[in-house]
Amino acid sequence: MDIRQLAAAAKESAGRLAVTPTRDKDRALSAIAEALEKNMEPLLKANEADIEAAAQNGMSAAMTDRLRLTEERIAGIADAVRYVQSLPDPVGQVLGGGINPAGLDITRVSVPLGVVGIIFESRPNVTVDCAVLCLKSGNACVLRGGKEALSSNRALVAVMRGALESVGFDAGCIQLVEDTARETAAEMMKLNGLIDVLIPRGGPGLIASVVKNATVPVIETGVGNCHIFVDESADLAMALEIVDNAKTSRPSVCNALETLLVHRSCADAFLPAVAERLGGRVALRGCPETLRILGEGVTAATEEDFYTEFADYILAIKVVAELGDAIEHIAKYSTHHSEAIITRSLESSRAFTAQVDSAAVYVNASTRFTDGGEFGLGAEIGISTQKLHARGPMGLTHLTSYKYIVNGTGQIR
Amino acid sequence: MDIRQLAAAAKESAGRLAVTPTRDKDRALSAIAEALEKNMEPLLKANEADIEAAAQNGMSAAMTDRLRLTEERIAGIADAVRYVQSLPDPVGQVLGGGINPAGLDITRVSVPLGVVGIIFESRPNVTVDCAVLCLKSGNACVLRGGKEALSSNRALVAVMRGALESVGFDAGCIQLVEDTARETAAEMMKLNGLIDVLIPRGGPGLIASVVKNATVPVIETGVGNCHIFVDESADLAMALEIVDNAKTSRPSVCNALETLLVHRSCADAFLPAVAERLGGRVALRGCPETLRILGEGVTAATEEDFYTEFADYILAIKVVAELGDAIEHIAKYSTHHSEAIITRSLESSRAFTAQVDSAAVYVNASTRFTDGGEFGLGAEIGISTQKLHARGPMGLTHLTSYKYIVNGTGQIR
Repeated sequence: MDIRQLAAAAKESAGRLAVTPTRDKDRALSAIAEALEKNMEPLLKANEADIEAAAQNGMSAAMTDRLRLTEERIAGIADAVRYVQSLPDPVGQVLGGGINPAGLDITRVSVPLGVVGIIFESRPNVTVDCAVLCLKSGNACVLRGGKEALSSNRALVAVMRGALESVGFDAGCIQLVEDTARETAAEMMKLNGLIDVLIPRGGPGLIASVVKNATVPVIETGVGNCHIFVDESADLAMALEIVDNAKTSRPSVCNALETLLVHRSCADAFLPAVAERLGGRVALRGCPETLRILGEGVTAATEEDFYTEFADYILAIKVVAELGDAIEHIAKYSTHHSEAIITRSLESSRAFTAQVDSAAVYVNASTRFTDGGEFGLGAEIGISTQKLHARGPMGLTHLTSYKYIVNGTGQIR
Repeated sequence: MDIRQLAAAAKESAGRLAVTPTRDKDRALSAIAEALEKNMEPLLKANEADIEAAAQNGMSAAMTDRLRLTEERIAGIADAVRYVQSLPDPVGQVLGGGINPAGLDITRVSVPLGVVGIIFESRPNVTVDCAVLCLKSGNACVLRGGKEALSSNRALVAVMRGALESVGFDAGCIQLVEDTARETAAEMMKLNGLIDVLIPRGGPGLIASVVKNATVPVIETGVGNCHIFVDESADLAMALEIVDNAKTSRPSVCNALETLLVHRSCADAFLPAVAERLGGRVALRGCPETLRILGEGVTAATEEDFYTEFADYILAIKVVAELGDAIEHIAKYSTHHSEAIITRSLESSRAFTAQVDSAAVYVNASTRFTDGGEFGLGAEIGISTQKLHARGPMGLTHLTSYKYIVNGTGQIR
């Protein structure tokens, strides 16, 4: 099947899935979890082919590790499927309504989006994650993973579709794009009428390409150039713990700290403590004032550094004269994902939370908390950095739209 | 100013507007309403220039009428401004939140979208409508109207900005694109980072062009190829009233009826009644079975007719064998705006409302009710026919996003 046929098959399946009761969807999810556990052997074998190809292509150890499936990881994926099964069905919820002046009985009800297209990179667990989140929310999905994980993705989708068929469930709701040519992805981005929304999951390059080329509505996710501002009144011991946590607990994720902004009045006291704590583990790139305070061991930050999501053990540092400068810096350089202020001042905290226009704005806490689980959304399909539809962590409810059902007795207008 | 500078000015203003209290916004709206009434003369003069140019360019009478301002219409526009002023402020609403397991105090708060770009055609009242809806919801706007209304739009924007300045309000939040070249609109559609959302208001051609070319997020509005299905158990007298109302009460609007679907079992009884009632006023285009029943006076409907929003006194008619065929026809041809079933059957009404995937699905009522006012949203900025962000009538709340404000006491993860 070419990409258009495949999306059309998903669309057809979506019509049926939209009106499938929760218990049937949950039974299907349960069957998928069980099938993943029962098919460890073929899954590991399929994954081995990707790992071997990766070795031949000189893939880095870190990337290869992301690609690898193990018995433990497959068990973890199956557990995640069961967790999604346990969540409430977001479809069919009555969101509002009432009787209007003409006597019409209006009910606003949540419905699936329809067909969700997902374009993602290496990690094979994303394949299952996205498929089951879509299924639970009544959406068919068209999954387009990376070439380097094709063998694993084929096997995972075969297991999932087999599980669906085994319980009499329409397997057409999970479609894998096996043609990993760039042109196919480009065509997928323009399937208006067949794909209702496109969610890119991957690096900044992938996301920028989707935003630029798609005519289908897109939800931008996951690029996080996050900031922490240490205000003049900050508890510097607290600030140090938070900066260390936000930068080093998991530097590759989107809610990790990238640029530290420090109020001039506490820079002399705070920056040496940062250098001492992070020095050996994190490369520091500072503004001229940071360089003056810290001297050697810090390289000069470029303009480009302040725009960059390093996703690595690198931290940009800038000293600012006042709160307003920190807010301005964030407005200019941030991707509007997560930003924090460390302060004891009520006035500063109010100004920062009101004026910083990001999905999550923190006072005295690590940016690392921006996460569907932490925010009480259950499972997460991504973190939106746009303002339309959903902002911040997206859970099952963000995979739904709504419609108005209007019951009348012959009303005309 | 070129379009980029103009959008940058809007963006800068948006930052301030986002944190402007309701009472200041309401005072600004009040000043705008008053200024419109006080400046009837220059507004009418500016409009006269557009009307004269229209005459020279051979614009149709109907189009010229849409373009025309009168004292009464300006008073109506001012009243609409005061109505928007009277609505609740959608910004700063606490939408949810709670204490998470780590002890973080999480609050989800509504915020403006930022900068709303609006690309629209002739009617000058849209200029004021959109500007004040954006202002009330804390958004700056970049308005790009049609060339044929440029003189009117310049005058309206000058009056609005003058009114803002007169009460010390930042006038930068209303920006008019005076360069009506196609290339400027194309550039506007790609101003990611400066324009947060683009709303096209106009005909299908305009909307298709924006969807195809924009890289900025778009909300598709207002193309309505609406259907009414007359089921076998329908009260045919009720059906006739509803069909007449939906087709003829205002054929140019998006919630008007375009295709009538009739169950075969009642076609022989119902179609002659339709022809008798609408015959003189509405051109009927029928499927072969309709032609057989009605004979002369009906032309054959083409495949293209069933895809068309006539927005005119034209009605396509198709006889279907059963409910499922009606639902399939709608799935294929509809723009998913508004559809109705006329039936006495509970089973048919349930199947229709569950399976028809449109913004508004009616039982025994006219599609003409799809409207922000009728649905209790107050003023309306458009009717979304997409599923992301907003579906159906969009009011002030749909011009907002939200952010998470997270207060901690030093939490790390």
